[in-house]
Amino acid sequence: MSERRRVDVGTGESGSVVWIGRGVLSDAASLLSSASGRFILVTCAGARGAADRVRACLEGRILADVEIDDREESKSLDTARKVIDAALRSGVRRDDAVVAVGGGVVSDVAGFAAAILLRGIAWNAIPTTIGAMADAAIGGKTGVDHPAGKNLIGAFHPPRVVLIDTEAAATLPERELRAGLVEAFKAAWIGDSALAERAEAALPEILSRSPEPLLDLVAGAALVKARIVSADPKESGTRRLLNFGHTLGHAFEAAGGYRLLRHGEAVAWGIAAAVDLSRRRAGLSDADAARVKSLLARLGPFPEPPRDPVLLAPYLERDKKSSRRGLAGVLLEAIGRARVEEAIAPEEWLAAAERANLGS
Amino acid sequence: MSERRRVDVGTGESGSVVWIGRGVLSDAASLLSSASGRFILVTCAGARGAADRVRACLEGRILADVEIDDREESKSLDTARKVIDAALRSGVRRDDAVVAVGGGVVSDVAGFAAAILLRGIAWNAIPTTIGAMADAAIGGKTGVDHPAGKNLIGAFHPPRVVLIDTEAAATLPERELRAGLVEAFKAAWIGDSALAERAEAALPEILSRSPEPLLDLVAGAALVKARIVSADPKESGTRRLLNFGHTLGHAFEAAGGYRLLRHGEAVAWGIAAAVDLSRRRAGLSDADAARVKSLLARLGPFPEPPRDPVLLAPYLERDKKSSRRGLAGVLLEAIGRARVEEAIAPEEWLAAAERANLGS
Repeated sequence: MSERRRVDVGTGESGSVVWIGRGVLSDAASLLSSASGRFILVTCAGARGAADRVRACLEGRILADVEIDDREESKSLDTARKVIDAALRSGVRRDDAVVAVGGGVVSDVAGFAAAILLRGIAWNAIPTTIGAMADAAIGGKTGVDHPAGKNLIGAFHPPRVVLIDTEAAATLPERELRAGLVEAFKAAWIGDSALAERAEAALPEILSRSPEPLLDLVAGAALVKARIVSADPKESGTRRLLNFGHTLGHAFEAAGGYRLLRHGEAVAWGIAAAVDLSRRRAGLSDADAARVKSLLARLGPFPEPPRDPVLLAPYLERDKKSSRRGLAGVLLEAIGRARVEEAIAPEEWLAAAERANLGS
Repeated sequence: MSERRRVDVGTGESGSVVWIGRGVLSDAASLLSSASGRFILVTCAGARGAADRVRACLEGRILADVEIDDREESKSLDTARKVIDAALRSGVRRDDAVVAVGGGVVSDVAGFAAAILLRGIAWNAIPTTIGAMADAAIGGKTGVDHPAGKNLIGAFHPPRVVLIDTEAAATLPERELRAGLVEAFKAAWIGDSALAERAEAALPEILSRSPEPLLDLVAGAALVKARIVSADPKESGTRRLLNFGHTLGHAFEAAGGYRLLRHGEAVAWGIAAAVDLSRRRAGLSDADAARVKSLLARLGPFPEPPRDPVLLAPYLERDKKSSRRGLAGVLLEAIGRARVEEAIAPEEWLAAAERANLGS
């Protein structure tokens, strides 16, 4: 048995149990949840190592084994349908469960497929990227993209079990690692100043994938997310804090055709812009702003985002968080403390996008 | 203002308010729910009369107006996508709402589109067929078919508001009316013996669409469904009673390629078979069995169902209610009282299907 922490997110049928530790993957057979004991495995080429370990653990209990393309362009209704088709061909029943092994695209698509298969079957997440460990796999948001924008089709359908094993990230490409760390630091910045401080200090070790500090950051980020999501499972209030850096981040990503920037890279630029807004509108100190930006600079360099307002504006307007009152945004009051600003004019976002930089 | 009854199904965010009465459609503008006041209208050619009345009521507040094909063959992920595409093209936001005007296919598809649009927006149902009024529009089951079977893709997403106005059924084709009445009587048989008695006595008036007895039957059926659904929103127990006649009904419908038999017609044969099983396994009296069958015979004649076990078996095995323990089925103990039998062997269903008849 591995050394591990258990974190409970939400309660009851809509609750998740998150296991965090080195080696928890080896206990997949006993930790994953399926009423029938049978699983639909959904994975991607990049997660082959972790997927093979899960296959070995679940031998004889895998009803269907589906590999999907995990590029953002493939995060579509058609890819979800591929999972659904395979599951139904294999005779899936309501008491079977999905297990997703991969990054955010895999868990978003597989979780969404589970949400609408037979009006909802259980699912489990085994994130293999830092972004998915710190963010995507926790909280129950599942979904796919639409030509009109990201995550516009989806469901709230929390996984029953999440296994976070930083060993699964050992073979991540460098760029993937650095992009994923942006999401982990985001969680620290909005909700845990002590974690932010520890992780900033340990950045060289984290970047060289030293297990202890990497696990500390990922587990801390997962805890911030779990705490926020438990308090607001359907995103009616505080959960929106998790969107820090994402209003412009999504627009950067979409305007770049999902190819120019990885999700975490786009969010890094989104955070840089939100930090500028936070200095002016939320009293964020120059020192804290400089700390955030300098950390992002050390995670980079990241490709330049598209900054043209004409290009970005349509993606801002389609943001799910828009309402009659304007575009809600998340601002930082200090490292570790964020708040939602109800209506920031799109023009203000676009101006911040043009100025966004990772210098101090 | 029209004369109307209000029935509450479930509570809170997952609750529906059902308004039943002659003329409630005229009050659509004040009764339908949308936080923004804006609507995505989803309708079908057959519901044009009711749809035009809704358009007039909601003038200037309809963001998108989508007509879908309401044949069972069109109850697909692609049709749901058509609704989603139109909604996103029109700039739908989270505080907008869908309103579905039509029969069961329209409410199933539109409700499902609402369930997965922006991870779930509100919707309203205005059923225009008897089956949809008595059954489909209430209870939150939404979804689409898959080549492997009916309703295999979907979500639980109750409409905020349901408007049941039997005037909307005034122009229904005769075959549609009679098929729909099967679902209404089903509700009476499983849950309201007094209603069953009244409606049996009033059948000639009901078939000639006399408003009072038709409304009495439809309202009574809706109440039975509302009561059962409120007690068990996610179908973990008593809600399964509503599947009376549907285990074989779905198989008949699917084996006929969804063209041979309308849903209600297939359910009529499914009920006839379940009544035979109920006599042997649940103590249903010969007199009650004869009453049910003779009523079905008066609603018919219905096209003959496919009875070949080789043809039917695959559809039974794919039933969502199947589990390791076998196929759950609903049996009648007496008119007005049903129970779930946990595991009936597929062979027993198939034998009942071969014998099913509407004679006494």
